[in-house]
Amino acid sequence: MTSAAPAEWDRQARSLRFENGTLSLLDQRLLPDEILWHRCQDSADLIELIHALAVRGAPLIGIAAALMLGQLAHQGVHGEALRTHWRVLRAARPTAVNLMNYLDRLEPLLVAEQPVEQIMQAALGIFDEDRALCRRLAQRGLDCVPQGARILTHCNTGSLATAGGGTALGVITHAQAQGRNISVWVGETRPLLQGGRLTTWELSQAGVPFQLLCDSMAAGLMQAGQVDLVLVGADRIAANGDTANKVGTYGLAVLAHHHGIPFHVVAPQTSIDLQCPDGAHIPIEQRDPAEVRGVRTAQGALRWSPADAPVHNPAFDITPAKLISSWVLDNGCWEDFSAYRPGS
Amino acid sequence: MTSAAPAEWDRQARSLRFENGTLSLLDQRLLPDEILWHRCQDSADLIELIHALAVRGAPLIGIAAALMLGQLAHQGVHGEALRTHWRVLRAARPTAVNLMNYLDRLEPLLVAEQPVEQIMQAALGIFDEDRALCRRLAQRGLDCVPQGARILTHCNTGSLATAGGGTALGVITHAQAQGRNISVWVGETRPLLQGGRLTTWELSQAGVPFQLLCDSMAAGLMQAGQVDLVLVGADRIAANGDTANKVGTYGLAVLAHHHGIPFHVVAPQTSIDLQCPDGAHIPIEQRDPAEVRGVRTAQGALRWSPADAPVHNPAFDITPAKLISSWVLDNGCWEDFSAYRPGS
Repeated sequence: MTSAAPAEWDRQARSLRFENGTLSLLDQRLLPDEILWHRCQDSADLIELIHALAVRGAPLIGIAAALMLGQLAHQGVHGEALRTHWRVLRAARPTAVNLMNYLDRLEPLLVAEQPVEQIMQAALGIFDEDRALCRRLAQRGLDCVPQGARILTHCNTGSLATAGGGTALGVITHAQAQGRNISVWVGETRPLLQGGRLTTWELSQAGVPFQLLCDSMAAGLMQAGQVDLVLVGADRIAANGDTANKVGTYGLAVLAHHHGIPFHVVAPQTSIDLQCPDGAHIPIEQRDPAEVRGVRTAQGALRWSPADAPVHNPAFDITPAKLISSWVLDNGCWEDFSAYRPGS
Repeated sequence: MTSAAPAEWDRQARSLRFENGTLSLLDQRLLPDEILWHRCQDSADLIELIHALAVRGAPLIGIAAALMLGQLAHQGVHGEALRTHWRVLRAARPTAVNLMNYLDRLEPLLVAEQPVEQIMQAALGIFDEDRALCRRLAQRGLDCVPQGARILTHCNTGSLATAGGGTALGVITHAQAQGRNISVWVGETRPLLQGGRLTTWELSQAGVPFQLLCDSMAAGLMQAGQVDLVLVGADRIAANGDTANKVGTYGLAVLAHHHGIPFHVVAPQTSIDLQCPDGAHIPIEQRDPAEVRGVRTAQGALRWSPADAPVHNPAFDITPAKLISSWVLDNGCWEDFSAYRPGS
């Protein structure tokens, strides 16, 4: 028996809506050419979207999962059933830790006398907190961005990946809004092309000058002295500062190091996993070979490699702490991760 | 007035045929799904194929241009007209130097009393020489390939790129044939995917075990200790050993250096340009932005980035000599390029 959802519960972000107690998510596979929202009736709907990377961005996945749990509780799902939803949602993306962090916060509320309002408020609080975190990251990161900086970024870490303005890309758009006169090199981020499809689109919308390149072209740009700094996000930061992020990040870190270019990770503290000692303990998903044999977009699919070509397709890689110039977190810029202390 | 072309002039390679005095070329854009040969009536036909990268591979372009000049001479084109063809062919691909090297050999024959037979024999000689060079490179390179080696390669440097078995990929297939029990990591080589489309296909045909990956995944493989050596080709080697090759090569060289992995360039001496002092003097083509905004294959075209997204699209990059472990040339393996002396 579901009561009407109060309007105070409604939330809107660029790629996520919570309206009338129901979660809807923008299909990021189809951007920038097609705007398609999926209503999620159930955790299975959300998990399918996460697995397909229709919904992506470490913070966004965690927020969506928390809201889904609120939605289910409000719909009257309870007891062991709700706990099962909690468990499968928590396992939907093994590398990104925000998901686990956020759901762990809801876990104490999964008790016999299920406090629906409290679960919902906790989920909404996660959404609101992420927006605030993005604002703080944008401000903290500003110190890393000199006037006129030419910034290389990877994947998509903007308003599509969070409830707010983003992490690394949030710093970039904020720096632009503050008159820093920056320009951005966007790595296309094969195989799923989040840079080519999403970051280009967000930068266009924000009026930030950019150029798109294939991932393999970043090295030549650095060699030519055309990159002043690298800004990336994080899917998980281990206790020693090792950072998992979209595959390709580690290579950029080695290249930045070789060329003496600052390499900053921008992430909320919710991306930190102090239980995880180092990068070797972060699980890395191997994905569908078809992603590398070709491409699939809103316009269709193409395969260019032999249909049976064996493929190596890790979704993420690990950048060791020693290659990271600083971790721009919502509680400050940490140049030495061993000095990091949780807190606001 | 064209006389019949003697059968002794006929030549066949995997992606080039010279039959009845006429050059035909395999359209490498359409591989591996479609086999389409283009008959070239004129240098304009060939240049169009080169610009579109339908015909690619530094040695192959030079061989094709030489044979085209022979074909034109045999067709009765002479004097200033033949010299004009020579000039436009020579300029068709500014980075690859084999083209210029080969055409420069024919230049002394472009005289008033045009010795058709001599021009043709010189062109056929270039074809035959390239096959012999490939065999010698394959043998020379064998010393770089330990038993069980896991070799990373980039782009396509095989039988599609030469008249013979290839350069770097020729070493690989030869090592396999010699029982070295190797396996190959194939970088897909965005934007035109010569690795994903061509090298996978050649390795499948040759029965060499391989796995395809996106270019940005190579760093993680090296970090994980899964790459024993890197073998690449060259579009031009400057007098100091700096080497131009397909974009992405330089990044792999930096990564190999960082991980202590040997990085070898495999090329015939015809890829060396002793007139060019160093990499800064090698011109780098910027190509069509559409190549990076999407992809075009035999099956069709897809664009995933905003149609007006500004793009950075250099076709090549420069690897400085200091990052190269050795230059495997047809006259030996040179660990120090300053010691290199031309000769057989």
